[in-house]
Amino acid sequence: MQRINLAEKLAAVAHPWQPHTVAEFNGHDLMVARFQGEFRWHSHDDTDDLFLVLRGRVTLQLRSGNVELGPGELFVVPRGVEHCPRSDDGAEVLLMERTGTPNTGDAATAEPRRVL
Amino acid sequence: MQRINLAEKLAAVAHPWQPHTVAEFNGHDLMVARFQGEFRWHSHDDTDDLFLVLRGRVTLQLRSGNVELGPGELFVVPRGVEHCPRSDDGAEVLLMERTGTPNTGDAATAEPRRVL
Repeated sequence: MQRINLAEKLAAVAHPWQPHTVAEFNGHDLMVARFQGEFRWHSHDDTDDLFLVLRGRVTLQLRSGNVELGPGELFVVPRGVEHCPRSDDGAEVLLMERTGTPNTGDAATAEPRRVL
Repeated sequence: MQRINLAEKLAAVAHPWQPHTVAEFNGHDLMVARFQGEFRWHSHDDTDDLFLVLRGRVTLQLRSGNVELGPGELFVVPRGVEHCPRSDDGAEVLLMERTGTPNTGDAATAEPRRVL
């Protein structure tokens, strides 16, 4: 029964766009990740996608327009909605998705599940 | 499709121990709350309980010992585990529970669902 310090966990994350699971919650993974540059357009048919920015700025590009997030700001991308995260200057982010969700929306190209 | 600024939402929360829903995620409520003093011992049989401290300090009292949380620290109380949150000096917290969960563990004494 340990507390999770998000900054400590992020200190162990070297590369952008690699989610690292820090806790589990009702069949979901709570993950930290670094964002830098642009990810790729994708969607998740079976899960909403939570983004909470801890440091830096993130642009969530949606087909309907962009959502700009700074520290202490969150957004839930509804299931099935295409999105493409971007962070020009880098960001640290808390993510939540159903456990087993491929981060790219496609198991063939997804990052492996990493647990910190 | 609006970003959620947690500090702005908390500015509208006057009283401690009253969760306010700011977003929904896969059948769960993301809520902000102020903690001040001691809550009550309770558990939730059908949901894990996520606490992420945004400001101040929180002691999550468990029967097995205390978990001390500061800003940027989180803890997931597993379903069925008795807990009693406390914050002597006050805190602002992001919470997550399955939608419909009584905050006291008992519908008879629970706060109403408030949406911000």
